[in-house]
Amino acid sequence: MVFTTPASRKLFHTSPWTLSANASEACPAAPTHSSSNPPMAFPCVDHLEERTQKFLQSFDGGPEPSYSNPVSGYSLYYHNEPFLLDHGGILPKFEIAYESWGELNAEKSNVILLHTGLSASSHAKSHSANPAPGWWEQFIGPGFAIDTNKFHVICTNVIGGCYGSTGPSSIDPKDDKPYATRFPIITIFDMVRAQFEMLNSMGIKKLYASVGASMGGMQSLAAAILFNDRVGRVVSISAAARSHPYSIALRFTQRQALMADPNWNKGFYYDKVPPHSGMKLAREIATISYRSGPEWEQRFGRRRSQPLTTPSLCADFLIETYLDHQGERFCLQYDPNSLLYVSKAMDMFDLSASFAKQTSLRRARNLARLQEGKGSSAPENAATPPEEQAASHTGTAPTGAGLVVNDSDDPKAQFDDLKQGASKLKDIPTLVLGIQSDILFPVWQQKEVADCLRQTGNKNVTYYELDSMYGHDAFLLEIVNVGSAVKGHLELKE
Amino acid sequence: MVFTTPASRKLFHTSPWTLSANASEACPAAPTHSSSNPPMAFPCVDHLEERTQKFLQSFDGGPEPSYSNPVSGYSLYYHNEPFLLDHGGILPKFEIAYESWGELNAEKSNVILLHTGLSASSHAKSHSANPAPGWWEQFIGPGFAIDTNKFHVICTNVIGGCYGSTGPSSIDPKDDKPYATRFPIITIFDMVRAQFEMLNSMGIKKLYASVGASMGGMQSLAAAILFNDRVGRVVSISAAARSHPYSIALRFTQRQALMADPNWNKGFYYDKVPPHSGMKLAREIATISYRSGPEWEQRFGRRRSQPLTTPSLCADFLIETYLDHQGERFCLQYDPNSLLYVSKAMDMFDLSASFAKQTSLRRARNLARLQEGKGSSAPENAATPPEEQAASHTGTAPTGAGLVVNDSDDPKAQFDDLKQGASKLKDIPTLVLGIQSDILFPVWQQKEVADCLRQTGNKNVTYYELDSMYGHDAFLLEIVNVGSAVKGHLELKE
Repeated sequence: MVFTTPASRKLFHTSPWTLSANASEACPAAPTHSSSNPPMAFPCVDHLEERTQKFLQSFDGGPEPSYSNPVSGYSLYYHNEPFLLDHGGILPKFEIAYESWGELNAEKSNVILLHTGLSASSHAKSHSANPAPGWWEQFIGPGFAIDTNKFHVICTNVIGGCYGSTGPSSIDPKDDKPYATRFPIITIFDMVRAQFEMLNSMGIKKLYASVGASMGGMQSLAAAILFNDRVGRVVSISAAARSHPYSIALRFTQRQALMADPNWNKGFYYDKVPPHSGMKLAREIATISYRSGPEWEQRFGRRRSQPLTTPSLCADFLIETYLDHQGERFCLQYDPNSLLYVSKAMDMFDLSASFAKQTSLRRARNLARLQEGKGSSAPENAATPPEEQAASHTGTAPTGAGLVVNDSDDPKAQFDDLKQGASKLKDIPTLVLGIQSDILFPVWQQKEVADCLRQTGNKNVTYYELDSMYGHDAFLLEIVNVGSAVKGHLELKE
Repeated sequence: MVFTTPASRKLFHTSPWTLSANASEACPAAPTHSSSNPPMAFPCVDHLEERTQKFLQSFDGGPEPSYSNPVSGYSLYYHNEPFLLDHGGILPKFEIAYESWGELNAEKSNVILLHTGLSASSHAKSHSANPAPGWWEQFIGPGFAIDTNKFHVICTNVIGGCYGSTGPSSIDPKDDKPYATRFPIITIFDMVRAQFEMLNSMGIKKLYASVGASMGGMQSLAAAILFNDRVGRVVSISAAARSHPYSIALRFTQRQALMADPNWNKGFYYDKVPPHSGMKLAREIATISYRSGPEWEQRFGRRRSQPLTTPSLCADFLIETYLDHQGERFCLQYDPNSLLYVSKAMDMFDLSASFAKQTSLRRARNLARLQEGKGSSAPENAATPPEEQAASHTGTAPTGAGLVVNDSDDPKAQFDDLKQGASKLKDIPTLVLGIQSDILFPVWQQKEVADCLRQTGNKNVTYYELDSMYGHDAFLLEIVNVGSAVKGHLELKE
């Protein structure tokens, strides 16, 4: 045994032992490979490469992304006028795909608008035009949490998504090519304003309730903020009044994983190999944040998929094969660009008064700009500050003041700002429900929504915490615990 | 406004509006781009591509990965005999890089072996040969938590790593090429057995204490299990008795992110472009798990790096630029293959008696196999079960029984198994310290270690929980709270 202090790592390459010893003597019966140990196998990497090759060989024979096929059985609302978005982008027209259950009454007063989570479609419940089970199959129906004997439920696909509503995979009427990343930045408030354009066309003046979980809970709150005289009750499950940095971080890494896939190609992949590998990875990361509860401990523990094999750097433990499966299932089901835009909209969500003020100033400026015929003021380059430029270019802004950014570090000032923003909900009965094991929308964020509403003087705020083991996904799985809360809130006499 | 139920998504492409309206009329003063909105810019993607191009153009002119340069100022222990690993692989020889502080006493009885976390090097503290601050700079020194007036501290780089100890970037003596992913699977126990080979050579019979945090805490416990008569005291900070599925999941996505980078090339990148993009992403994901505490809420909140610009899909919020910076700093600093092997070793870590028994059966079989001249029994292909084959090939296993896999779903049986495994520590004073905001090694896992040791009859178990806001990384940052606990435990008279 020898001890030295090497001057350089290079010593390793020319160490006396390496030069003098014949390594094969140490392993005389070594197999055919020329190394001390056989090379590792990576079937998971081969699998991704094979799928890419299939796409390259033939688009007819290869696996077709399912988001390029119609999701069947929905209805469409066509909005054929330009729609100005909160950050200055324009949709020359847009469509909203939606599904509905239960009868609309004569007064059109029994409508429940159901908002989806990030990757869910309008197919919340089976129906004759699409008998497949929906994502809230057991929550909607006669006598169920949302009682279709009483209510007319409408569930829409968000703009920016890929299930029939206008999104990045839709055709830009300007050049008849998919928008791709020429699609403008959208906000949760844009999604909701688009929904209300649809409700206008349907002659629905006031919702009985606005209901949603996760991103849908954000929309549910946003609907009541934007149209507070048109929303009767609010249900917000596992959502937030504003995204906190930890959840932004989780979504950021998902977007980065997707954008790092060379096949993403800055969003222009619609006639090429889709970024299936990046999407799979993004979904794996997302799944960790969706199922944060102790469920995995019980369900998978430390068990391996093939306990007697030598450990592998591909999926090995059951938890890994589970994540692999979740990613695999999703990677061709949802449009990667939609993931970017819709998850970014969640990051930006904020109910604060200062944020609303800023948005409303921007809207006014961009509207003026649009009316002057200047078109989209969406950014050509993210490094330039077009919003600031817009502020200096237009003297027509209602207040004349520059854009206000709430950069306060003070938690109390932030909470007051939020409270002021949420004051529009003070007369709307609201159910806020959170899951104690949720790390994506932690329960303190639910408490923040409830506290904030109560402090605005709202006397009808119901706040529940569930001890479910399912983490964020509990809203999909806790039929009794979540269902009863929703039913009670919707049906309790005012 | 029109409502229809489309037969196919194709309707979108030929909607009357698209055909009849001239979109440019809606945006008459549109800029030079031909779309309704300008394309998004992706400076973050351009940046990654530029770095790849720099590597491709010239390896001299391009950014050299720092792990290919010597980390200066360490000493080297050379082990020039074959070393059999727990899963059947062989290192024909290995080196361990280490640094030390404080004087070794004549009896060699004042040695503290300090174990590193996954990506840390032996440079825990500055010294004359390397004056740069170490990762535990404020914890080691005269009068500090680990008092160099009293103790001789040795910190080693783990085998499998890239800071001087033998790892995937080292040269396989068999063919004088880097091991890459021909490096065999290693375990935490292998790392510790290699350390004790070094201690043997140094004539150190018994450690005053084995100290470590995170992966180092696992090693610290493993040392006491493997060599219970050679370890005086144990410190285990933010570690675990076995990895739970949530932490395995977090490390799995990091490995997948890295392996999805085409430049990873199944591990054979040492003379090519390194997988800097995958490494950057892996570090971003890791950073989320390291800093799980409320710190981000205070430090970054919802502030954006350039508040007046239009939102971007690249790093935008301060939390995103922070993650981007962390990834950027790390991506050429640590060998990607080391990340794979070392993080996998953490996943496999388990102090259970059944696991130890299984390992010891395997070691005996592989030793027999090695002595018969059959060489490495590491897997050629992860899909075949060589460990099972080994069981049927060798009749020389001590018990003759097949490999035992503890697949019990029963938490009590699992805990009993763990307790039995940990019983070797029953006479070793042990400090277990956990952080309440740690999601990677949650505090219930620390409690599990402490409970388990106490139930074996150990009367000297100290268990602390810290309410630090720094999450898992608290062990690097909480100089007073962590430091006092360590000092107290090391210096309290037995």
